[in-house]
Amino acid sequence: MKKLRELAIDEAFEMFVLVKQADVRMAKNGKKFIAFTFQDTSGSIDGKFWDASEEEIKRFVAGSVVMLGGKREVYQSNPQIKILHLRLATEEEPNSPSLYMEKAPIQREEMMEEINQTIFDITNANWNRIVRHLLTQYQTEFFEFPAAKRNHHAFAGGLAYHTVSMLRIAKSICKEYPELNPALLYSGVILHDLGKVIELSGPISTEYTLAGNLVGHIVLVNEEITKACQTLKIDDHSEDVLVLKHVILAHHGLLEYGSPVRPKILEAEVLHQIDNLDASIQMMLGSLKQIEPGDYTERIFGMDNRNFYLPRM
Amino acid sequence: MKKLRELAIDEAFEMFVLVKQADVRMAKNGKKFIAFTFQDTSGSIDGKFWDASEEEIKRFVAGSVVMLGGKREVYQSNPQIKILHLRLATEEEPNSPSLYMEKAPIQREEMMEEINQTIFDITNANWNRIVRHLLTQYQTEFFEFPAAKRNHHAFAGGLAYHTVSMLRIAKSICKEYPELNPALLYSGVILHDLGKVIELSGPISTEYTLAGNLVGHIVLVNEEITKACQTLKIDDHSEDVLVLKHVILAHHGLLEYGSPVRPKILEAEVLHQIDNLDASIQMMLGSLKQIEPGDYTERIFGMDNRNFYLPRM
Amino acid sequence: MKKLRELAIDEAFEMFVLVKQADVRMAKNGKKFIAFTFQDTSGSIDGKFWDASEEEIKRFVAGSVVMLGGKREVYQSNPQIKILHLRLATEEEPNSPSLYMEKAPIQREEMMEEINQTIFDITNANWNRIVRHLLTQYQTEFFEFPAAKRNHHAFAGGLAYHTVSMLRIAKSICKEYPELNPALLYSGVILHDLGKVIELSGPISTEYTLAGNLVGHIVLVNEEITKACQTLKIDDHSEDVLVLKHVILAHHGLLEYGSPVRPKILEAEVLHQIDNLDASIQMMLGSLKQIEPGDYTERIFGMDNRNFYLPRM
Amino acid sequence: MKKLRELAIDEAFEMFVLVKQADVRMAKNGKKFIAFTFQDTSGSIDGKFWDASEEEIKRFVAGSVVMLGGKREVYQSNPQIKILHLRLATEEEPNSPSLYMEKAPIQREEMMEEINQTIFDITNANWNRIVRHLLTQYQTEFFEFPAAKRNHHAFAGGLAYHTVSMLRIAKSICKEYPELNPALLYSGVILHDLGKVIELSGPISTEYTLAGNLVGHIVLVNEEITKACQTLKIDDHSEDVLVLKHVILAHHGLLEYGSPVRPKILEAEVLHQIDNLDASIQMMLGSLKQIEPGDYTERIFGMDNRNFYLPRM
Amino acid sequence: MKKLRELAIDEAFEMFVLVKQADVRMAKNGKKFIAFTFQDTSGSIDGKFWDASEEEIKRFVAGSVVMLGGKREVYQSNPQIKILHLRLATEEEPNSPSLYMEKAPIQREEMMEEINQTIFDITNANWNRIVRHLLTQYQTEFFEFPAAKRNHHAFAGGLAYHTVSMLRIAKSICKEYPELNPALLYSGVILHDLGKVIELSGPISTEYTLAGNLVGHIVLVNEEITKACQTLKIDDHSEDVLVLKHVILAHHGLLEYGSPVRPKILEAEVLHQIDNLDASIQMMLGSLKQIEPGDYTERIFGMDNRNFYLPRM
Amino acid sequence: MKKLRELAIDEAFEMFVLVKQADVRMAKNGKKFIAFTFQDTSGSIDGKFWDASEEEIKRFVAGSVVMLGGKREVYQSNPQIKILHLRLATEEEPNSPSLYMEKAPIQREEMMEEINQTIFDITNANWNRIVRHLLTQYQTEFFEFPAAKRNHHAFAGGLAYHTVSMLRIAKSICKEYPELNPALLYSGVILHDLGKVIELSGPISTEYTLAGNLVGHIVLVNEEITKACQTLKIDDHSEDVLVLKHVILAHHGLLEYGSPVRPKILEAEVLHQIDNLDASIQMMLGSLKQIEPGDYTERIFGMDNRNFYLPRM
Repeated sequence: MKKLRELAIDEAFEMFVLVKQADVRMAKNGKKFIAFTFQDTSGSIDGKFWDASEEEIKRFVAGSVVMLGGKREVYQSNPQIKILHLRLATEEEPNSPSLYMEKAPIQREEMMEEINQTIFDITNANWNRIVRHLLTQYQTEFFEFPAAKRNHHAFAGGLAYHTVSMLRIAKSICKEYPELNPALLYSGVILHDLGKVIELSGPISTEYTLAGNLVGHIVLVNEEITKACQTLKIDDHSEDVLVLKHVILAHHGLLEYGSPVRPKILEAEVLHQIDNLDASIQMMLGSLKQIEPGDYTERIFGMDNRNFYLPRM
Repeated sequence: MKKLRELAIDEAFEMFVLVKQADVRMAKNGKKFIAFTFQDTSGSIDGKFWDASEEEIKRFVAGSVVMLGGKREVYQSNPQIKILHLRLATEEEPNSPSLYMEKAPIQREEMMEEINQTIFDITNANWNRIVRHLLTQYQTEFFEFPAAKRNHHAFAGGLAYHTVSMLRIAKSICKEYPELNPALLYSGVILHDLGKVIELSGPISTEYTLAGNLVGHIVLVNEEITKACQTLKIDDHSEDVLVLKHVILAHHGLLEYGSPVRPKILEAEVLHQIDNLDASIQMMLGSLKQIEPGDYTERIFGMDNRNFYLPRM
Repeated sequence: MKKLRELAIDEAFEMFVLVKQADVRMAKNGKKFIAFTFQDTSGSIDGKFWDASEEEIKRFVAGSVVMLGGKREVYQSNPQIKILHLRLATEEEPNSPSLYMEKAPIQREEMMEEINQTIFDITNANWNRIVRHLLTQYQTEFFEFPAAKRNHHAFAGGLAYHTVSMLRIAKSICKEYPELNPALLYSGVILHDLGKVIELSGPISTEYTLAGNLVGHIVLVNEEITKACQTLKIDDHSEDVLVLKHVILAHHGLLEYGSPVRPKILEAEVLHQIDNLDASIQMMLGSLKQIEPGDYTERIFGMDNRNFYLPRM
Repeated sequence: MKKLRELAIDEAFEMFVLVKQADVRMAKNGKKFIAFTFQDTSGSIDGKFWDASEEEIKRFVAGSVVMLGGKREVYQSNPQIKILHLRLATEEEPNSPSLYMEKAPIQREEMMEEINQTIFDITNANWNRIVRHLLTQYQTEFFEFPAAKRNHHAFAGGLAYHTVSMLRIAKSICKEYPELNPALLYSGVILHDLGKVIELSGPISTEYTLAGNLVGHIVLVNEEITKACQTLKIDDHSEDVLVLKHVILAHHGLLEYGSPVRPKILEAEVLHQIDNLDASIQMMLGSLKQIEPGDYTERIFGMDNRNFYLPRM
Repeated sequence: MKKLRELAIDEAFEMFVLVKQADVRMAKNGKKFIAFTFQDTSGSIDGKFWDASEEEIKRFVAGSVVMLGGKREVYQSNPQIKILHLRLATEEEPNSPSLYMEKAPIQREEMMEEINQTIFDITNANWNRIVRHLLTQYQTEFFEFPAAKRNHHAFAGGLAYHTVSMLRIAKSICKEYPELNPALLYSGVILHDLGKVIELSGPISTEYTLAGNLVGHIVLVNEEITKACQTLKIDDHSEDVLVLKHVILAHHGLLEYGSPVRPKILEAEVLHQIDNLDASIQMMLGSLKQIEPGDYTERIFGMDNRNFYLPRM
Repeated sequence: MKKLRELAIDEAFEMFVLVKQADVRMAKNGKKFIAFTFQDTSGSIDGKFWDASEEEIKRFVAGSVVMLGGKREVYQSNPQIKILHLRLATEEEPNSPSLYMEKAPIQREEMMEEINQTIFDITNANWNRIVRHLLTQYQTEFFEFPAAKRNHHAFAGGLAYHTVSMLRIAKSICKEYPELNPALLYSGVILHDLGKVIELSGPISTEYTLAGNLVGHIVLVNEEITKACQTLKIDDHSEDVLVLKHVILAHHGLLEYGSPVRPKILEAEVLHQIDNLDASIQMMLGSLKQIEPGDYTERIFGMDNRNFYLPRM
């Protein structure tokens, strides 16, 4: 059966989908409507539900699985669903949200295996212990959380997938530049975004938590390292721990982007650039996948609001 | 007896002073000289020691107390010492560096008393316990360290003095705006720069430590709060602790200035502005004290490189 | 009887209110509607009047007092009025706009008294005479005008209220830093925004005047000082007058914010920071008052578009 | 007889010149020297006077005319004088500084005539009266002052010369764009920099006055217009006066450059751009005149620190 | 007969106009409408066509000439058309788009003559040959294309008109500053925007071409000069060709505005400033023409989003 | 025998070296000295030659090979040579500059082979032909030139070495992200800096050429592609050629860094980031190699003036 993003223009359909977002807005005629984002594993599409009653607003909330009947249209060069009928999935039907969530293109087990293999290359004992301690502590969240609320890797498992992609790039680069310390770079890659499991609320209807808003994932993971050191009886002012913390604290590269320090160590600068590279490619691919050769993407917020052209070749 | 900054122009003198800085440089004629900064409790003045031998370079290092004979001159509108003779103070002479260091204008005991009184106003139990725990742990350093390597409050006790000045302003402002939470503001004031006791090396020949360079005082104090919570069995993700951390993390106001988050809470914004106000006034006063009415100060780095005029009235 | 901002959600009501703004817009269906802002002394709320006839558009203009019947709703987390019926207040009813305008929380007489007391502390004769001359000349407007069209202190009497708040802070700060010249700082505080009585049109439906747009309040008050000097036969190039002018001209702190010079005198920098502090607190409080603990305010334009969190404690 | 800037490389000479600047500095060997800038009507050249005695420092000050014997050399691709002997000019010798000052390339009388003719085109009575009043009041200074301490038009008569050049451009542009109001543009050109006669100390050893530093020429000329209106009994809040003030206040174009308002009137924007154009050309020509085709100028501070190439054609 | 921009408010009319733009959008009620921009030689006005059928959307596309019946209204202080009826012009009716396009205020022949005359002043043989070669090659487009998609000179012939205006200013300025090389400045003016004939799609429904988006007009004209040199057997690395290229490459003045080099030659800086001056004046006049004295224009995007006031005099 | 950068501190030596730079400066005592940079294949070190005669200045110019006797010292934490004696190498001695130049760490033949292999992967015929044409045309320079005058890869063969390093990274990344077009990315990598063979003067005493200053390497290589298309009879406005040009024109990433367009194609963004990554690593390694673990490098201009720490592990 076809999935959401595989429908042809003007194709009518009926399928189960997840309600990813359901924003209630008021039309200029004073009546309320619901601006839905529907989702299945192929991606997501918007659709408007006009003249929504209070009861319907309460029924069709984000996180519910629905049977959606409609037609796939185009509106201002974006795909969109004209909703013809809509009802909640019943208990007998496939109504688990996890069935419809976008997922990382690599299996969780494969990612886990790849990360575990990498840990063997972390030859510094302190770094190795800290990485293993935190991965064990947050294992469930690490493989379920997205890497962001929107922009890049904003899907279930996105955090681990972003980490694994970066590890692969990091390994290639360590081969080219033997002066790099692989143990430091890999430790940094694995931990750099781990604070997002505290900063974000989870894979569905992702929001920032209070800790995320008031402290932010960069300082949150630093707190976790601090606590891990206490638990593991590691001196958190030893040079290797300071260096590891620095590499992670500096990974946004610029103070303006929220790092409290700029990279002052070779591996910190490289980690920052690999992070940027993987995130950029994912953001561009996410938009380019939705257009045809010869067209331009929408403007991408995370790429300085640029749009991109997909060449005809 | 006169002190360093009380000498008249062209006045000859002999006195004990502390060598605050001793940078070895090479003159254009290829010979080495020492660019000294001498200091006593009245302030500091530069002086050059020409044709320094290797032995002299090793003898007159920063931190040593010397008997200095010379003449107070003016060079490019800055005071300067023409060195006539120089020798190390002997064991019998007053050779303890602490005798010559600039100090906060308030006595340590008075500052301690004022801070302790303030702690009674910190009515939130978690904040109160964290503040007392950290002040107890770092009591010695807190009252000895400067608030900076240079710029504002760069003298022994400067950290505590800056804290006390800010507390006074904070109290006045809490009176004017009853919506402010005094317990939060006072906790924030007391802890905001405490990380400097780890960031800096101490009151003499102050340098940045490795932790200071790689982590920075803003994140360092956050680590201390994290550890204090573990020790005191306080949930460090409870809302009041998150709020306290935020107020401190945000105190530089802008990401560009090294805060990983911008103020998102009323008291965080106010703390930032009080910090700025006290630091600005201290920097301006520091320069204005050295000139006569009708003159302009040197450009002050920490004030966007502006110079200031001292009116004739 | 309840006031506008005291209504519970979904509460029906009838009350007299002032029409603060009445913007005519066109709905997507091509019909006109009026986007009202209603106001009483408790604050203001928006409401839309659909399918407005030309006659209604002419009748319900900004500045008129109306009997409003409606229901208090919430729209995109902002309070809003659903208008059920609307008519102009009659001559017999309480139809004076001044009855419904937000006012400074301090009485005019009290503010006047406080400012007059302060003038005794302006010990420089030129400054004292200039301040008294201009306060006398613009006494009515000074105590009636808002301090801004929107943002902070945008209510009747806001200009005087902002001035008085700043004076209180200034006095506290002069106590902490005896090097400050209180006479200069108080003169600067009292006059710094006086040009707004020319820049703005008045307390109702406040707009910028032509002089406000083409010259601006900073230069306008400088003109008033120039004229006052001519009238009072004070040499306006004497150092004390130049210094007073400077303190006022520089009060926006940065050229980018419209000051033709940056602060070059201690009191000028302090005045700028006090101004900023009081304006910031007022803007934050204005938004925080409208939300519940645990919520975030709307983004505040004058605070670099940040939003603020109201802690649950 | 040859002038300063006409000397060939390595040419020896003796001539009377003006000491434009005489900065006393200390050499690395601890002895004082004077860094002279010598000047005659052909331009200026630097030269160093080694091992200066206190008496010589007092004798050869800026503003004195000296008999200079020396050799014209090149140092780091800049011309420079090797001083062989130096003495003050006597009473019998041509010792008036004005004989040696760079002057505008147009005669004062010609400039005066050209400005007077232009005033006939200022058909608005208020503008005409204000312009004539202020030109009469500051006639002497207007034709003697430079337009700046350094950068562009930094020579005696530079202010008037800059004004006349701009008037010529303004006239050409008014011909091309008939929508422009010539009376407004010409009034603006004539008055825009008039405040410099108060901002600067005069044509010799030009410095900023206290009024220049604390108020600045843009606001100073606005004060003069305010006073002129009082004297001439013109309503200074009439629209034509407001418009004239605006055109002048906005002439730096950007707030960052010290204008308290940005141009909001056609002629204000045009005045700003003509000012920029004339100043840029003068700065570039000033540097290009000193080099040969195929060479690059020194970096020009007022042109964003760019250097310029003089093509070989 | 009246033209579009000559209609009085509320005046009903019937006339032939060109559809300049026809954007299909969806109303909040879910139905499509067409947001038209209609145009004749007097200018353009917007109008909305509600409840558009798919057939109507296909019929009334940009570039078609229509008989429009409607009423001229005002909406948010902008003129607008209420559409009463609409049909395509027939073959017998005046249905050529060129009849309705805004045109340069100077005739094509006059512009051509003026440019040809100017070429006589280009005394450098290489520049002369390159200019003539490219003008001959792109003669048709050069006199038909606009100078921009929107902002300044966005009408048929706008490119040539902008060029001619700039030439006139350039000639005046060459008279004032004899150091300028007129041949270089005129060559630069004529060629500086010629790349727009490749960057843009043409005078109707102007869009950016792929070459425009990926390469841009500044580099495109550089390519044309490169090819011209090959065809004309001119060494494109000779100094005069390098200088000509530079003057053109640098004409946006700042790297941020898309010039790959900043002006490093006198004439390059002057060309940039003349370009800016003519474009600014055209943008301001375009908006000022649409308002009455005493009013403010809309904000002009190309003028840093400023609005302008039209004085009452 | 030891090389320049292998000498211990205070070690005396005699060896042949190349004079890389020889700047004549004037000491404060008025005498000239030569500020040398000596070089052999191990790197370069500075040394000052005091009291240089005119004859010596003419003898020891950049590019000459000398027999240098001296002592390796440290000055302000930088290595430096104290010159004891100095003479030109004779004809019989190893006096060819190429013997002493820093070289890429990979042999020219190996780089050539690697690039040639890569060309097989450029499967688009136009790109393949253009790349081969330009590499053939500039083969000698491409393998001899540095990639910059200073900063990164500023040594003979640096251009090819930088290209090869980037190709290796590009290949790894193409493996990770199969959506990338390898042919486009490799073509872009090979050509992106080829314009430097025109922008720079060559591998010894590298300077910018006039074409480099006035046009710049980004536009210069675009010209070369334009000419190649003419020679090879390829339509230079075909989409694949436009796309190739874009990828190269955009490789500095930001307009502020001299690209006339920002990346609008996936491979353009990736090319920019790989370029940045390789250049950054080279700059950091260049500085880190000169210090010991536990020390900080000098500030690196090309890395936003940051310094870097070399951890002790």
